[in-house]
Amino acid sequence: MKATVYVRLKAEVLDPQGDAVRRALGTMGFDDIKNVRIGKLIELELGNAGSGDESSVRSALEKAANELLANPVIEDYEITFGE
Amino acid sequence: MKATVYVRLKAEVLDPQGDAVRRALGTMGFDDIKNVRIGKLIELELGNAGSGDESSVRSALEKAANELLANPVIEDYEITFGE
Repeated sequence: MKATVYVRLKAEVLDPQGDAVRRALGTMGFDDIKNVRIGKLIELELGNAGSGDESSVRSALEKAANELLANPVIEDYEITFGE
Repeated sequence: MKATVYVRLKAEVLDPQGDAVRRALGTMGFDDIKNVRIGKLIELELGNAGSGDESSVRSALEKAANELLANPVIEDYEITFGE
């Protein structure tokens, strides 16, 4: 089973990296971009335990996201499961 | 209109950051993870031009991804459109 954790800055947190990308895209001619936000994409390939029930895997991943993958002070995360 | 660019390391490229996360998760008790890959999530909020036809926006974003957002030597990208 695969799980994907999307980590995004909270909406109220400034994203200077995204702003730099927006400006760089502007110099390349893409000047109709209102906003750019940069986040992380963490793809986990789970072993056999991952084939157990999804809710226990989800709660384990939420713990991992809160403690390691995301900084809950400034970031939100979203967990999805794949094949 | 919103566009999202997912940037991932190519499958044949080693991901030491992902390996470090896998080991760190292991020390936290999540030891049934086979593989972790870390990528980038770039969310663009497009202005009025973005409400034009999707294929021209897509080709512009492919150019941007090849030249700025991703390193096509070691990374692949995927573009999706949202509301």
